[in-house]
Amino acid sequence: MELFSAHTEISDDQFLQNVEKCLEEALVVDDAVLPSSTDMLLSAARHLCVGQNAKRARPLLTLYFGRALGAPTQMLVKAATAAELIHSASLMHDDVIDNATMRRGRESVNAQFGNTIAVLGGNYLLSVAFSLLRDYPQEATSEAVLVIANMTKAAIAEIEIRERIEASLDLWREIALGKTGVLFAWCGQAAAFAVHDMESAQAFRRCGHHIGVLFQLADDLRDLVEVNALKDRFADLRNKEPSYPILVAASKSASLREEIVHLWLAEQVDEKRVECIGDAIISSGALETTLHAMTVEIALAKESLGR
Amino acid sequence: MELFSAHTEISDDQFLQNVEKCLEEALVVDDAVLPSSTDMLLSAARHLCVGQNAKRARPLLTLYFGRALGAPTQMLVKAATAAELIHSASLMHDDVIDNATMRRGRESVNAQFGNTIAVLGGNYLLSVAFSLLRDYPQEATSEAVLVIANMTKAAIAEIEIRERIEASLDLWREIALGKTGVLFAWCGQAAAFAVHDMESAQAFRRCGHHIGVLFQLADDLRDLVEVNALKDRFADLRNKEPSYPILVAASKSASLREEIVHLWLAEQVDEKRVECIGDAIISSGALETTLHAMTVEIALAKESLGR
Repeated sequence: MELFSAHTEISDDQFLQNVEKCLEEALVVDDAVLPSSTDMLLSAARHLCVGQNAKRARPLLTLYFGRALGAPTQMLVKAATAAELIHSASLMHDDVIDNATMRRGRESVNAQFGNTIAVLGGNYLLSVAFSLLRDYPQEATSEAVLVIANMTKAAIAEIEIRERIEASLDLWREIALGKTGVLFAWCGQAAAFAVHDMESAQAFRRCGHHIGVLFQLADDLRDLVEVNALKDRFADLRNKEPSYPILVAASKSASLREEIVHLWLAEQVDEKRVECIGDAIISSGALETTLHAMTVEIALAKESLGR
Repeated sequence: MELFSAHTEISDDQFLQNVEKCLEEALVVDDAVLPSSTDMLLSAARHLCVGQNAKRARPLLTLYFGRALGAPTQMLVKAATAAELIHSASLMHDDVIDNATMRRGRESVNAQFGNTIAVLGGNYLLSVAFSLLRDYPQEATSEAVLVIANMTKAAIAEIEIRERIEASLDLWREIALGKTGVLFAWCGQAAAFAVHDMESAQAFRRCGHHIGVLFQLADDLRDLVEVNALKDRFADLRNKEPSYPILVAASKSASLREEIVHLWLAEQVDEKRVECIGDAIISSGALETTLHAMTVEIALAKESLGR
């Protein structure tokens, strides 16, 4: 993919180290008039944002888009860090809403610092993110504002869709776009804004949408097949979250659909049934359909780049 | 005060009607891709923002500053609406944090729509506010970002100061600045940015800080003397919030201070003691000291305007 050629000299690892440094600096230096409150906000923010278990997908995407245009590294680092902060703010608020206890392999901010700090900490992260965009054209900020509005709507839609096996794949895709696509798209736009290339900004935006949906498809697929230290298999099924393959499986088999409805209606989720239904989803052909949807998104992502 | 002369032809009432219209439009029109989530966010936002019981102090302040510079009404309406939305976002999040049930004489958003909508609704209001600043120079946005960071810190400091009769008047003032002063200051800055007058922006910023502190002093004073339909007298004392006159009274009389400490240590607040201590605060001379502090802020506000 042409995007990955090295117009910008820096390696992925070096770039991520720069982003890590930028994150740390943004979450330390502060002209505190209210030192104790600031300390608490910054501790909570660092607890979530600075660490080993973050994938840094958004910073890497910003780098790849930026490389394609030969954008200056320092500008890219700022947009990449802003994207990571916007993402982290959404995680902090999501964890309050879900009453989550763990995030990225450690205690969630709400669990460790309480809901107050987690609610206000999310706002604070957003303001730190925006303050990093000062050297960018105003479009970077106004587009980021739209991204946050869309992420907010998708967060609500994701709650509404819970337990709803009758949800459409179109709705699933809109949520994936809002959860992940719009911020991925912004990473591409920001990389183009850094060199004032408004045409590429449009193309990268479309490309980011497809990569975001691709990312969510992969995430949903992984939940069915992968076991790792941070997450149990079949979490979506257990948490009554209609993932793409679950929706596909339900549309393929009426009896499987019945079983899922039954599982989700129960007060207590039965672990044996989860395993059994999970295996049935895998053998329903839903994996293959999900993989196919992924190849479609990849093709559309490439196509949106034009050249 | 020179500020109040009518360079801008519109009356206060007409201006507020325009702000009301702008608020309603900002919270209705939406290119919804996720219609159900958008509906919920907009209903919650309108529930809080569009109504009779809001004082609209920030819009009026924006108008008064703008009049002094002959700023165009339509630009002022946008900044005024943005300020009201930023203020409303902070109220929405404050009510989640305090588990408040009432706001502006009706049910709070968290009480009526739940915490999820209130947390995400706050974010959404901020993004709507920023989207109104598109015609403003970038400074209006970057300053608003700092305002939100400062309001966030003050919200935490306000929680930390609760029950702490030993808090200093300096800390009280920093919180008043963060809670109210920085957004009032921004209203002045925005009015000046609308006519690209950077010198007035600086002066109005300082002036707004003082008016914000003045506003908080008046609020604290009102709690001791005024009875109205929306708020009981002595709410600060009852809620263990060290207001300016409470802190002054405690510094004037060691025995009164002891009584307040005692009241705040009790599990259940004793209503008779609240009345009794409240009256003692009034007769301690704390009202006069607070009134004096108000005249100081008025003088400083005038001084900061220079001419």
